[in-house]
Amino acid sequence: MSLEKVYKNIDANAENFVEDLVKLVRQPSVSAKGEGIKECANLVEKMLRETGFSTKILTHEKGSPVVYGEMKSKKPSKTLLFYDHYDVQPPEPIEKWTHEPFSGKIADGKIYGRGVSDNKGNFVSRLNAVQALLNVFGDLPVNIKFFVEGEEEIGSPNLEPIIRENRRLFSADAAIWEFGGTDRQGRPHLYLGLKGVLSVELKAYGASKDVHSANAPLVPNPAWRLVWALNLLKDCEEKVLIDDFYENVLMPLNEEIRCLRDIPFEEEEMKKELGIKEFLGKKRGIEALKALLFQPTCTINGLISGYTGKGSKTVLPNEAAVKLDFRLVPNQKSEEIYMKLVRYLKKHGFGNLEVIQHGSTDPSRTPVNDPFVGLVAKTAEKVYGKKAVIYPTSAASGPMYLFRNFLGYPVVSAGCSHPEANQHAPNENLKIESFIQGTKFIATLINDFATDWC
Amino acid sequence: MSLEKVYKNIDANAENFVEDLVKLVRQPSVSAKGEGIKECANLVEKMLRETGFSTKILTHEKGSPVVYGEMKSKKPSKTLLFYDHYDVQPPEPIEKWTHEPFSGKIADGKIYGRGVSDNKGNFVSRLNAVQALLNVFGDLPVNIKFFVEGEEEIGSPNLEPIIRENRRLFSADAAIWEFGGTDRQGRPHLYLGLKGVLSVELKAYGASKDVHSANAPLVPNPAWRLVWALNLLKDCEEKVLIDDFYENVLMPLNEEIRCLRDIPFEEEEMKKELGIKEFLGKKRGIEALKALLFQPTCTINGLISGYTGKGSKTVLPNEAAVKLDFRLVPNQKSEEIYMKLVRYLKKHGFGNLEVIQHGSTDPSRTPVNDPFVGLVAKTAEKVYGKKAVIYPTSAASGPMYLFRNFLGYPVVSAGCSHPEANQHAPNENLKIESFIQGTKFIATLINDFATDWC
Repeated sequence: MSLEKVYKNIDANAENFVEDLVKLVRQPSVSAKGEGIKECANLVEKMLRETGFSTKILTHEKGSPVVYGEMKSKKPSKTLLFYDHYDVQPPEPIEKWTHEPFSGKIADGKIYGRGVSDNKGNFVSRLNAVQALLNVFGDLPVNIKFFVEGEEEIGSPNLEPIIRENRRLFSADAAIWEFGGTDRQGRPHLYLGLKGVLSVELKAYGASKDVHSANAPLVPNPAWRLVWALNLLKDCEEKVLIDDFYENVLMPLNEEIRCLRDIPFEEEEMKKELGIKEFLGKKRGIEALKALLFQPTCTINGLISGYTGKGSKTVLPNEAAVKLDFRLVPNQKSEEIYMKLVRYLKKHGFGNLEVIQHGSTDPSRTPVNDPFVGLVAKTAEKVYGKKAVIYPTSAASGPMYLFRNFLGYPVVSAGCSHPEANQHAPNENLKIESFIQGTKFIATLINDFATDWC
Repeated sequence: MSLEKVYKNIDANAENFVEDLVKLVRQPSVSAKGEGIKECANLVEKMLRETGFSTKILTHEKGSPVVYGEMKSKKPSKTLLFYDHYDVQPPEPIEKWTHEPFSGKIADGKIYGRGVSDNKGNFVSRLNAVQALLNVFGDLPVNIKFFVEGEEEIGSPNLEPIIRENRRLFSADAAIWEFGGTDRQGRPHLYLGLKGVLSVELKAYGASKDVHSANAPLVPNPAWRLVWALNLLKDCEEKVLIDDFYENVLMPLNEEIRCLRDIPFEEEEMKKELGIKEFLGKKRGIEALKALLFQPTCTINGLISGYTGKGSKTVLPNEAAVKLDFRLVPNQKSEEIYMKLVRYLKKHGFGNLEVIQHGSTDPSRTPVNDPFVGLVAKTAEKVYGKKAVIYPTSAASGPMYLFRNFLGYPVVSAGCSHPEANQHAPNENLKIESFIQGTKFIATLINDFATDWC
């Protein structure tokens, strides 16, 4: 089926499509602060309904609503699911924005605003691809499902029960994940997996109040206890010391290693931007990339205890806390790592530290040689005119495992972003050209999914 | 010489003396904020001059003024110096005060206000003791010097150069230090020394900005580096691991140990108040007291890095800092300990940590068997009717070493406070009875110093 008419329809509607996106960007939806969440969920549902989707709002306890949309093809066919999120990162520091973060201001061929690239642009491009196909053909070649959640930016803490309780509703043959885009050379980037993450907080307690540090020979200091406990978790060579932490870690496969060669890893630029002379362990090239994508980690995100103001204060604090995240790779399980951590602390005399679990997701990857990966890569090459770059996994985390591991279908992340999109930073933007090209890519993918994949 | 007339004079003037103290308390003088410092120094100088002292204001760079006062006896005689400070702790949390912190409100036989007990009450009681002696005898039996500084509560950072440059001005035969008082049994407590303290801050740096923790396999984390460095400083048995840290530490002498038996160490009350089940190393009784007074320490005062807000944030921080204090005992020197710390960090690969010195004082003790100690103890027993409790040293720190070690005379701390004075806490107060009794004690001491001591 020629898609020329669809492309023309997308071009003809470009202005409306941009308007749709601007409207969505203007609706703040900061999950970290609970700002505008319900309003944004309602707007997403309205947009889905106006395109012809039947919709459902699903909520678990006090979590943000998940907006679900479904549109069936008139003939029996396969189902493609889009995973998106309508929530955005907090816009702070606001003073560093050139245009107001929720203005949706258009300038220099770009739409500016928090969330325009991550992930509202992708959601709208997918919705508009469906609209264009309907405009031209009056039907969809496959069934389409939209799963649009509102807590991705805070670790999707309420997603798992929703998925577990609505297993049949979210069944599909494959899914497209929320993010992706093109690089500086215009090559489309595809991501086949996400690391897991386990976020915990360890708290040590001492006396019932801060005391004068003259009492140090007698009064236990929780800050020291925390330091000693942390020192047991990881050594200076970055090896995690928790018993059996590396148990179940899969070695990267040959085909995954092969993918790394094509990844444009701009390591010198990265070091320069970060102001560091070398990577940990003096790793370079493929070795550095291998570590980045396949290595599980244990990271201190934050430390706090006692007096942290100007100068000095001779205080012996009564509380100390550390925030840690563990990035996990297949087949580590976040719940197992949590248990191993607790056991290990206890074994070493730190059983009285409070361990608070702040969130967790399991790691997940779709195999490089899965037919759906081949289909998405082929479509991307066709639309963008350049061979797709395939990441066996991203170094980041997200709830992909619920779809890939629990619902059981292949998941590939591909989107309409570009290298200067400033995601999670001030002046987030989306090039209108990338947005429209991404819409064409998704329309093509829906079409190819119907015809080229079995 | 009978002092009955002097005691009567003190009683007769009690109301005026309390008024003097209230006036001084009403003048805020918070060195931590630089609030009211100059005004308070001027008031102290005025009070000294009105009593008949010749005065001098000495200042080093931007430090608070030191107010110096001197009054000579008409006949050649010995010199007694009083060390006091007019600065006070910040009054916060103000909402916990029953009376305004700078009101000098009188209620229940007490004067309330920040600094009334620490240390304005002692200064005024000493000044008034001089006044009473002058009232009765028209002369002093010894030369009296007052050294009243304005930065004691922030570690006296500008004192050393003033002392070094005015060595002859501050010469004396003995000195009475700022603090002390009676216990619940009405026994006077004397302190013969202070620990030294070295306050430092260690800072570790990573990338030029916080980065997403997905980059953890490649980007150095300063919080981990700080944890590993701290772990090298002290082990779980509280032993400081810095090379030669314990070099020069004096073992407590037999006569010092003997003093400990008379010290009312209310350890169960202390544990209960602190909400702890036992002291470090399960120490009890004399062993705990020995540790408290004679053991040098390394204490984390504060820790800060990365995200410390609610919940979790997957950030890899670019900076981490710790505030530490080392409490030192004779004959450790703060400058040597600083050098040992820097060398030790370098030796273990942490030479790139920034080490900021926030302040230091050396430890100091006057021997238990010094004749001046005997004199003060005897006078105290005479005035208070109970045997004095002698602390070979306090567990706290202060610039006593400049007088004891540099100027070379014996120093004993004895004052007019009482157990519920709430020093450094809300509702600081001074019992008027203790204040007047303390004034009599100082008048007696000046008299005994002239007659009983050679």
